[in-house]
Amino acid sequence: MNFTYQNATQIFFGQGQISKISDAIGTDAKVLFLYGGGSIKKNGVYDQTVQALEGHNWVEFSGVEPNPTKETLDKAIAVCKQENIDFILAVGGGSVIDGAKYVAAGALYDGDAWDILIGKYTPEKALPIGAILTIPATGSESNGNSVITNVGTQQKMAFAAQCVLPIFAIMDPDVMKTLPEKQLANGIVDAFVHVCEQYITKNAGAMVQDGFSEALLRSLISLGNDFNDRDNDLWRANLMWAANQALNGLIGSGVEQDWSTHMIGHELTALWHVDHARSLAIVQPSLLRNQIDHKRGKLEQMGRNVFGLEQSDDLAERTIDAIEAFYNSLNVATQLTEHGDDKQGAIDAVVSRLEGLNFVSLSENGTVTPVEVRQILTNAVA
Amino acid sequence: MNFTYQNATQIFFGQGQISKISDAIGTDAKVLFLYGGGSIKKNGVYDQTVQALEGHNWVEFSGVEPNPTKETLDKAIAVCKQENIDFILAVGGGSVIDGAKYVAAGALYDGDAWDILIGKYTPEKALPIGAILTIPATGSESNGNSVITNVGTQQKMAFAAQCVLPIFAIMDPDVMKTLPEKQLANGIVDAFVHVCEQYITKNAGAMVQDGFSEALLRSLISLGNDFNDRDNDLWRANLMWAANQALNGLIGSGVEQDWSTHMIGHELTALWHVDHARSLAIVQPSLLRNQIDHKRGKLEQMGRNVFGLEQSDDLAERTIDAIEAFYNSLNVATQLTEHGDDKQGAIDAVVSRLEGLNFVSLSENGTVTPVEVRQILTNAVA
Repeated sequence: MNFTYQNATQIFFGQGQISKISDAIGTDAKVLFLYGGGSIKKNGVYDQTVQALEGHNWVEFSGVEPNPTKETLDKAIAVCKQENIDFILAVGGGSVIDGAKYVAAGALYDGDAWDILIGKYTPEKALPIGAILTIPATGSESNGNSVITNVGTQQKMAFAAQCVLPIFAIMDPDVMKTLPEKQLANGIVDAFVHVCEQYITKNAGAMVQDGFSEALLRSLISLGNDFNDRDNDLWRANLMWAANQALNGLIGSGVEQDWSTHMIGHELTALWHVDHARSLAIVQPSLLRNQIDHKRGKLEQMGRNVFGLEQSDDLAERTIDAIEAFYNSLNVATQLTEHGDDKQGAIDAVVSRLEGLNFVSLSENGTVTPVEVRQILTNAVA
Repeated sequence: MNFTYQNATQIFFGQGQISKISDAIGTDAKVLFLYGGGSIKKNGVYDQTVQALEGHNWVEFSGVEPNPTKETLDKAIAVCKQENIDFILAVGGGSVIDGAKYVAAGALYDGDAWDILIGKYTPEKALPIGAILTIPATGSESNGNSVITNVGTQQKMAFAAQCVLPIFAIMDPDVMKTLPEKQLANGIVDAFVHVCEQYITKNAGAMVQDGFSEALLRSLISLGNDFNDRDNDLWRANLMWAANQALNGLIGSGVEQDWSTHMIGHELTALWHVDHARSLAIVQPSLLRNQIDHKRGKLEQMGRNVFGLEQSDDLAERTIDAIEAFYNSLNVATQLTEHGDDKQGAIDAVVSRLEGLNFVSLSENGTVTPVEVRQILTNAVA
């Protein structure tokens, strides 16, 4: 259990916290106010942000997409360079905040910022970022991870860098009041899979990490079970905090991780624009069934400690069934249907794209090979 | 659930990590190497530290006591001022690291550093601190808390300041190999009570905080139950990480806290030199029995989720019994015996000292009044 862990993001959590940016951003900084579509104009967050920015020098850049694109974000980088921006204020969900990280690093780089994604440039400096979170799901508000889509090449790729960790994150659960049901359900599934990717691996006996992961999984299940009673402050606060803790580096410190569900799911999104959370729900149960012999011990532990299942010879199988049933209970499907009529062609397309990433094998055991990915997809493609 | 949370300490966790200080401390800084008695010379930590400091400019200051004293630490402050120290490297347990915080803040203050403890001076700047932890217990390696004893006035008082948060903490579980049984047992109890002080309060429905707290309590109980099999890497690593997470600000964010066991326990240490952990074990069961009507809901939750007890009318009572039995299983007594023959005099002394701190009432409900403290102590003093 050897690891280095640091997470310096300052969290301002609770109702009315958006006003805190007024002090958290120096008035001598020129701010790029980065956001997505118009939802923040409808739910009041835009107005609250503008009010808190009074006395600051700022320009805005809108239109960051869900699954933010290199093409749009490169324009934001150009604005940063042209306007001598000192600070990026990202107001939105994981997509806007992920996009802000690409912009923040790209603004201090002379080449094509996509170089970061392909490993040609490793950012060690970036403009400082502050985040106002509007959709609890990805944990992007307090981690250094970012996933960017290149429309031109149909690639969806990730990078991680300490220098793009937001220096503060405003988490006001009230922003969730106007979120559509689908985004809340997606957020629960996304956070759930984030925990699983750090938990359903070799059983190393890390008590604190396992215990924290199980606490998050139980919380998310409980929030999902109470989904119809979600219109209350406590439900919102619990979901927002759980999704944050699911991916801020803590539960994954000192344990093996397996992000193969994400790797495969990203291709479903890149090819057929499947919602990120849904892409995970499609891949994960099938992948776990495929890898069950490698993950049986942890799946059994999860069955007992998360789902409260009794021991049995098929406990690991029942645990996977319980995970799938949980997603379905939130109206999140676990079969791919967006691929058209050509099932074999769809499977070939995903495997071929993974191979294009120099994919040899995934998972903490290196046992998710192209052969296994074909099997996983065969069972996940309707 | 409104809160601000930030913990920027960089954790280097695992075997062989002491060498990391070589890079973590700039070679242009003049370092004060602060430690306690001779234990680090016997277990090799002193030599590892000296080796890692090669190329650095450093001086040492030893003799920081368990329950570190103003009197000793003021001498270290004088050394800092005289030697123009830039960085404090604290090598030890909670006492040395707590002491380092007092020294770090006091070195940049012209007056008597005890002013910090009595609220006359609020430190907003301090020398940077790095910590090499040798005893897992207090969490001091990654929090901004410090407890200092004034021998002259027989006061044991606490302060907290963001500026004394260690910038890094080296946590190598191997340092625990030579710790006496008593210190390991004390560490488990200390960490257990730290979690309880943030958990056994009003039931606010904070799922993540409660779930994390319960995970830590279950881990500590499990480690205590395996105490006789403690000579292995995993046991040491789990205890070291659990004790850290028990008091780094995370589980207490957004929930009410009740540090009354600590407040009363500090007086037992100041008056009769009771070990810190043992002072908590003496006070806590009696305090919980006294406050049971205010804490029944959370105690019942703890009984179910931590001790695995079945629901019953007396579940809260049985939970307290289980806590006390856990301490006793570690040979940590839950009755004060050091006070001499005068039981009533001992109780009067503690209450009088608390009143000297302008004590009106303690606990999240303000229900631990002097009358209740008398009752609590009557049941805790043998």
